Amino acid sequence: MRNPHSNGNLPKLEEGRESAEENGYGDGVILGLDGGATSTVCVCVPFFPYGDRLPEPIPILGRAVAGCTNRNSVGETAARDSLEQVISEALVQSGSDKSHVRGVCLGVSGVNHPSDQEMVQNWIRWDMFPSHVKVYVQNDAIVALASGTMGKLHGCVLIAGTGCIAYGFDEDGREARASGAGPILGDWGSGYGISAQALTAVIRAHDGRGPETMLTSTILKALGLSSPDELIGWTYDPSWARMAALVPQVVSCAEAGDEISDKILVDAADDLALSMEKLLSGCNGGRCPKRQYEMGHWKRSLGASTDTFRAQTIIPKVEPAVGAALLAMNFLTVKIDVS
Amino acid sequence: MRNPHSNGNLPKLEEGRESAEENGYGDGVILGLDGGATSTVCVCVPFFPYGDRLPEPIPILGRAVAGCTNRNSVGETAARDSLEQVISEALVQSGSDKSHVRGVCLGVSGVNHPSDQEMVQNWIRWDMFPSHVKVYVQNDAIVALASGTMGKLHGCVLIAGTGCIAYGFDEDGREARASGAGPILGDWGSGYGISAQALTAVIRAHDGRGPETMLTSTILKALGLSSPDELIGWTYDPSWARMAALVPQVVSCAEAGDEISDKILVDAADDLALSMEKLLSGCNGGRCPKRQYEMGHWKRSLGASTDTFRAQTIIPKVEPAVGAALLAMNFLTVKIDVS
Repeated sequence: MRNPHSNGNLPKLEEGRESAEENGYGDGVILGLDGGATSTVCVCVPFFPYGDRLPEPIPILGRAVAGCTNRNSVGETAARDSLEQVISEALVQSGSDKSHVRGVCLGVSGVNHPSDQEMVQNWIRWDMFPSHVKVYVQNDAIVALASGTMGKLHGCVLIAGTGCIAYGFDEDGREARASGAGPILGDWGSGYGISAQALTAVIRAHDGRGPETMLTSTILKALGLSSPDELIGWTYDPSWARMAALVPQVVSCAEAGDEISDKILVDAADDLALSMEKLLSGCNGGRCPKRQYEMGHWKRSLGASTDTFRAQTIIPKVEPAVGAALLAMNFLTVKIDVS
Repeated sequence: MRNPHSNGNLPKLEEGRESAEENGYGDGVILGLDGGATSTVCVCVPFFPYGDRLPEPIPILGRAVAGCTNRNSVGETAARDSLEQVISEALVQSGSDKSHVRGVCLGVSGVNHPSDQEMVQNWIRWDMFPSHVKVYVQNDAIVALASGTMGKLHGCVLIAGTGCIAYGFDEDGREARASGAGPILGDWGSGYGISAQALTAVIRAHDGRGPETMLTSTILKALGLSSPDELIGWTYDPSWARMAALVPQVVSCAEAGDEISDKILVDAADDLALSMEKLLSGCNGGRCPKRQYEMGHWKRSLGASTDTFRAQTIIPKVEPAVGAALLAMNFLTVKIDVS
């Protein structure tokens, strides 16, 4: 059951605290989880005190993948089942079990409010682990940030995938957030948002409310449909990922000179840039970061235009699930220092 | 089982053709059905040859109400079951049965393409009626138009409820359509569209991407929520009607001077007006009406602004389900004249 991704530094967990001293990782294991709109990844890593010098590479004892765990899109039961399944699999792969777990950090999309946090926390705490196990629940954007900062909550992250969100923390731990509100509430920089605008442009060209666009033939061909009328039924499928998969068609039309497609992409990039700007200037209902983050240059990801911030771009060296594990390590270590 | 809405002119259907001659309605009955986004109404009326002089009032033998029959929103099985149930109930109420039915006209929302039409036609034809019964399937906008024109397919209809659509026919039967593409595809004049814009404005005010608006406190209060973050989870409920029910809040904010709300309503009215304009000027992929309809003046329904068309406003005297029945009568009578 040994994980092929593991670097081989398996702590001898069955021997308890002694094993920790032997391998230098402290005792027990930490679970880090990244639950996005499409899939969920859980990793199991050995516990080590968090500090400036982290093991390199971070040892991965177990890694498992499951489906979407956003309860807003798959429902509570399915989200809960997927979480339990992916955690169990990661533990089995690591050769450890629940009794070795010291802390869990879950970054789950759809966690937007303390009540969401509490709900997921209760699922995990009561169903899977005894009360002394620390369970931290965060929005998945936060563990993505932690994957870039190796577990430190300082900086900003901009995610533009199926959905989009901008999230940031200043050095004092104050947080700010922009967009990330889902497909209906104006996430225009998301893949879903871009596709929705493109499909709307096709409909409006068809009934005369908007100008003709290359998107009509390109999207109909990609979907195997013969008329824009058929798009109406097609869009009732609630899968956001299915919508977002049309982004390459919008990009190819823009590259071929279609003005409508170009405008959709530029507007999307502008809205992502606006989210980042608002994060940096701190307009989030009093929760504003006090200072500008030290960043140099950020290039818009959509290829439509570029913009400059005082920002330093970080390309994460580990995946978000590992970021989640490092975040748990950080929280646990700080806790130990305080107590 | 006699329908309290009936005017008492029940044909003696059990006596066959003789009864028709006695009561002057011809023989058999016609079913008219109006299936919208929220509910479905089916009426049973006695058959009479369609012409300039219609019985007044139109005799209603039976009337039944069921839930949504748009398969795009409730799924195929539920839509089919509701259709069968509401048709059976209307027949029972009328004191007749399937063997008396000469024709059925169904106006069903979500019917946007010949393939949708064919599917609903097959449900009804194969499951409920023998092949000699004429079954006509239309978009629900068309039977709404027929309720204003008493069964004639000539003129334009603009529906702005939970959803919105503009549909029209010229005197030669050529049709045109604008909007009616559902919540994702830019039906900005719909109740759903207005509410989505309002909720987006609340989110954008919250994260600093947009200006402050009175909508924040008004909508949160109406929904019993304490923070805009909670709206994110709230909007994942797929019910369009639940969204559209927020329109009164938007109107009250606009009336109280909130500029954001006012702009949302003006934009919605503009888009409804644009749909109507495009219908009249005929830009619907070659299916354009040849001449301007003889209409005088059309006032925008949203109270935000007014616009003038050469249009005559008709307030329907009968409900859309009766429009559907009159349409069936029209089709059947024309058929008789031809053969």
